[in-house]
Amino acid sequence: MRHLATTVGGLVLLLILLATLGLSLRWLQIQLFYEPLGGERSAEKLAYLDRVRETFSGPTREADAERPPNVVIVLFDDLGWGDLSSYGNQLIRTPRIDQAAAEGLRMTNFYSASPVCTPSRAALLTGRYPVRSHTHNFVFFAESSPIATLRRMLGQGNELPVDEILIPEVLRAAGYATGMIGKWHLGGIPGHLPNDFGFESYYGVLTSNDMQPLHLYRDREIEIRDETERLVLGAFRDEDADIEMKGVDQRTLTRRYTDEAIRFIEENRDRPFFLYLAHTFPHVPHFADPEHAGESEGGIYGDVVEDLDRSTGALLDAIDRLGLAGDTLVLITSDNGADYNGSPGFLRGRKGDVQEGGQRVPMIARWPGHIRAGGVTGKMAMNIDLFPTLLGLAGVALPSDREIDGRDMSSLFIDPDSASSPHAELFYFPVLRGGRPVAVRNDRYKYHVSTGDTGRDKPILVDVHRDQENHNLIRLLPLEGAALAKSLASFGAELDENPRGWR
Amino acid sequence: MRHLATTVGGLVLLLILLATLGLSLRWLQIQLFYEPLGGERSAEKLAYLDRVRETFSGPTREADAERPPNVVIVLFDDLGWGDLSSYGNQLIRTPRIDQAAAEGLRMTNFYSASPVCTPSRAALLTGRYPVRSHTHNFVFFAESSPIATLRRMLGQGNELPVDEILIPEVLRAAGYATGMIGKWHLGGIPGHLPNDFGFESYYGVLTSNDMQPLHLYRDREIEIRDETERLVLGAFRDEDADIEMKGVDQRTLTRRYTDEAIRFIEENRDRPFFLYLAHTFPHVPHFADPEHAGESEGGIYGDVVEDLDRSTGALLDAIDRLGLAGDTLVLITSDNGADYNGSPGFLRGRKGDVQEGGQRVPMIARWPGHIRAGGVTGKMAMNIDLFPTLLGLAGVALPSDREIDGRDMSSLFIDPDSASSPHAELFYFPVLRGGRPVAVRNDRYKYHVSTGDTGRDKPILVDVHRDQENHNLIRLLPLEGAALAKSLASFGAELDENPRGWR
Repeated sequence: MRHLATTVGGLVLLLILLATLGLSLRWLQIQLFYEPLGGERSAEKLAYLDRVRETFSGPTREADAERPPNVVIVLFDDLGWGDLSSYGNQLIRTPRIDQAAAEGLRMTNFYSASPVCTPSRAALLTGRYPVRSHTHNFVFFAESSPIATLRRMLGQGNELPVDEILIPEVLRAAGYATGMIGKWHLGGIPGHLPNDFGFESYYGVLTSNDMQPLHLYRDREIEIRDETERLVLGAFRDEDADIEMKGVDQRTLTRRYTDEAIRFIEENRDRPFFLYLAHTFPHVPHFADPEHAGESEGGIYGDVVEDLDRSTGALLDAIDRLGLAGDTLVLITSDNGADYNGSPGFLRGRKGDVQEGGQRVPMIARWPGHIRAGGVTGKMAMNIDLFPTLLGLAGVALPSDREIDGRDMSSLFIDPDSASSPHAELFYFPVLRGGRPVAVRNDRYKYHVSTGDTGRDKPILVDVHRDQENHNLIRLLPLEGAALAKSLASFGAELDENPRGWR
Repeated sequence: MRHLATTVGGLVLLLILLATLGLSLRWLQIQLFYEPLGGERSAEKLAYLDRVRETFSGPTREADAERPPNVVIVLFDDLGWGDLSSYGNQLIRTPRIDQAAAEGLRMTNFYSASPVCTPSRAALLTGRYPVRSHTHNFVFFAESSPIATLRRMLGQGNELPVDEILIPEVLRAAGYATGMIGKWHLGGIPGHLPNDFGFESYYGVLTSNDMQPLHLYRDREIEIRDETERLVLGAFRDEDADIEMKGVDQRTLTRRYTDEAIRFIEENRDRPFFLYLAHTFPHVPHFADPEHAGESEGGIYGDVVEDLDRSTGALLDAIDRLGLAGDTLVLITSDNGADYNGSPGFLRGRKGDVQEGGQRVPMIARWPGHIRAGGVTGKMAMNIDLFPTLLGLAGVALPSDREIDGRDMSSLFIDPDSASSPHAELFYFPVLRGGRPVAVRNDRYKYHVSTGDTGRDKPILVDVHRDQENHNLIRLLPLEGAALAKSLASFGAELDENPRGWR
């Protein structure tokens, strides 16, 4: 008996010691020699941007009648498919966003490329599924958080590779003024900040507002330092705004962003501009503008969303006041589906899930004179489509050295009734180990390898339009299931072979 | 080092040994001396039933113009709020149930008293919240399953206490013919079978169809023995019908039940009857009638539900054919919300959850000449209300020695537009440790102690009608929240004091 006890106890201790030693060595290695991911295609990227720069002589509004449109992307953080009144919310009132929808196109089958922040934002800006930019494992953490180091230890990285090509880099090369305001979430080390990826100006926070520290940056400098006491993991999750913060007053963030956005537009009114306004809210924790707090019937979450609605209204008013409405494509969307306290509408799943509620998000496109007022389309598209669409509108050819998964969706904007979806199929990647897609949909059906529910570790085929991912049709429609399963397997194998999509 | 290892290993071994010893003793004790729960109030129960028997001389249809209505309860197993076409399903077609709804009343805020089978059924038959009948811990298991013994070891019991008073016992004493067909799930030992609780006849299976063994009983005798090889825990969970069963062919169950139900009605046409038809489906695993398999657009789940629809249609046809329509109150409902493969409609949560999708279920009441055709009501009621309602219709006084949590809802059946909900508040009990309610709703708001979601281990107040339990209004409406919190705490304290509700 004593001998057995010694063996059991000894083995346990040995394993703990070995693991600790291995992790310590890896930690030391990262601290001393860490090389941020992704310099492989830097040369090709620079050559491409040079070519774009050569082609464009910086068109100005006065000189060139064919000037490309200004583009404003308003990206909300964790806003769910059902959080806007135009998408069915009965408690929260969003009259200004609804008005933009009435003046333009409202899409009911638009997707973020991931059910969480970092990969979705990488996809939006690069036009590629998250695995291409090595952002397919959950989200990035603040540099000082131990999780940032842990991510690097696990080979997941904590910053966007420098050889990725982003919309602002291309549009800047094509003569656009480029500005970003708000949440970046694609890296916090020099060389990986917004100003390093084509944004001429930046104002905002580098991470989600539940992460610490939450410094407010202007370009590369901290404008307001966050001195809040640190939690162990450097992140908290609570919808209530009871945290004593010693940094930027989060209640002022939406207003600050809005003022900066309007200033950016005013300053750049005479040349094509690209503004990426990536709001901090309605991500938890919630901080509402004190001037309107308590007004929404949707509680503090509603207050926060209604702040965003007022912000969007102010932005649109500025565009209209400057006479830029007909020259400016405004896109309003979200980075992923509703978190626990937002509304996915009638969709199944939430933030973090590959079910529809995790990735289907509002998308409103307003461009008076180009996009017909009052249109609604259920044709599917994804935020990876913005890269080719915006480059197309600017008259820039896509880079040829890499796979761009997105497709030009401008015809859907212009003629939603006749144009088809730019995709035959869209793929869904899980939050963890997201290197391979686990679901795929076409216009009518969605195939899941497994939803992970009890009793559902098996293939599932669902009707996307007539059912909310409840009833499994795989036995009824084996051919439809097999076709989608084949696409999924084949794209998975392609990604295993060449995850970054180099050509 | 060696000394530390010895201590660690030794302690681990000691703990394992002690636990094993304790469990073995308890197991032995249960095998030798187990006393089924609940003889405390047997005398009072018998006295009450004697009084009912004395009052009624067995009215017959011919003799008594004021004869009470026949009652048929059609109870589905795990049918979700969104599984019927009359409740919005777009794939599954349920024309016969929809027709019953069109001929009677459709309720949109009707609840099961629990998000799982056993406690819900106990509540339906006793008119009391599950904790009253000590059925508040998950579900009962087949006697031969080790989980049945485990339940007893944990003091949870595995059978309905004999001193509970059930609808069939009272109605039988009042002169009704009483029959049960289908799934019992309230105990598998002699003294706790359907025939022991007032059903003159019984035909069906004692547990859910994922539990082993699944013998088919006629009264107390096994008619078809299940010889299927046993799994370790005596239960499987899979929606597909790929299991090689050596017992009753589950594909025939719905049809067998239907034939028996029609026979029961035919045989008892001349006296008041109470039929409790508790279907086995659409609980997993799924077995569809081969004659119609593959017909539903909702896949195998749809096939199973459409079988149930045909069954209900055949039953209603028999009632009509026998000229009993105006004398028969037919109630169609479910024991809890949708499982992973059913539809909760647009509600949040599923089977097992105290969110609406776990407990809000269809309820259709048809009684031509008494219930107006085509009515729909959103006023809330619960399956605990059936006990006092049916006793009221039969002219029987409630027992006075115990709390009956249900309320007579007949005025809601008769005049849904003018009548109020029979409850100011309804309480929700969790599946595990369900002795205390964790949520309460009134006509407009629902208060949760905590929904258990990430970031939601705190009080939550939601608008039941205008939001699907997403947006927390507790800070916006502190008084409404406090009032419901007070009710919840006060009822919880009352239950702690007197769980069985003895007076």
